[in-house]
Amino acid sequence: MLGRDYPDQTCSISRALEVVGERWTLLILRDALLGLSAFEEFRESLGIATNVLTARLNLLCEEGLLVRVADPETPQRGRYLLADKGREIGPALFALMKWGDRHYPTRQGAPRLTLHAGCGGEVEQLLHCHLCGEQVTLDGVELPLAPAFSRPGA
Amino acid sequence: MLGRDYPDQTCSISRALEVVGERWTLLILRDALLGLSAFEEFRESLGIATNVLTARLNLLCEEGLLVRVADPETPQRGRYLLADKGREIGPALFALMKWGDRHYPTRQGAPRLTLHAGCGGEVEQLLHCHLCGEQVTLDGVELPLAPAFSRPGA
Repeated sequence: MLGRDYPDQTCSISRALEVVGERWTLLILRDALLGLSAFEEFRESLGIATNVLTARLNLLCEEGLLVRVADPETPQRGRYLLADKGREIGPALFALMKWGDRHYPTRQGAPRLTLHAGCGGEVEQLLHCHLCGEQVTLDGVELPLAPAFSRPGA
Repeated sequence: MLGRDYPDQTCSISRALEVVGERWTLLILRDALLGLSAFEEFRESLGIATNVLTARLNLLCEEGLLVRVADPETPQRGRYLLADKGREIGPALFALMKWGDRHYPTRQGAPRLTLHAGCGGEVEQLLHCHLCGEQVTLDGVELPLAPAFSRPGA
């Protein structure tokens, strides 16, 4: 039990979810990671209302996950490219995809493969200890508060 | 560009988000992974309305991520323990936490450390090729449709 040492307001998961904790937002980022960039491509892929898509894309640009660039073909809409900050949400989406593959399988199995480019091997996501070099399971990870967040006497 | 090979309705990320793609749901799972189990513990930690918390806990039990067990101390409420399916969302939350640590830092840095139990080393999340054994960056991962999902001639 964590009790009183739990600083919800400073939790990084909570802060992350203030930006990306909405289904459409994560699906837009998924599509961007898969190579979509035009407004119409997102709209067709997601079947999302235009005003909702506009609001989500604007938020992702304001927060620096996407960058809007001009596109002569669609001057009113432009294109939305992933910034590094948006690309770095990739590992979270990778983990969600693998969880979905495992727990909500389709009759034909996983819809997408995750292959090492140029090698063809299956890519998996692991936890790894930077100090001893061993592979770590989630049960083997401790999540103590950082010293600056520990209350004296707590 | 993906164009017409994009089977949104069969995407594992999309299916996963139908269950966990809601901010409160992911924060409840975060708290459960951190060791909370009693209704009141979740309510205090999240500052969430009782009816919303009840609905989210019920969904997580129906979907098999949490298991409700009797608790003599709070017979009306019970306790909510993580099932394997819920525990396995851990890597996605780990990735979201690291993304939040990086992009929405507090003045004092990351609120929680991720340490290898018994070793004390920093735990990091990596992509790893099962075939050649190399560490892979997200740019080095290809996400082709599985053969069963490829349309003839697509």
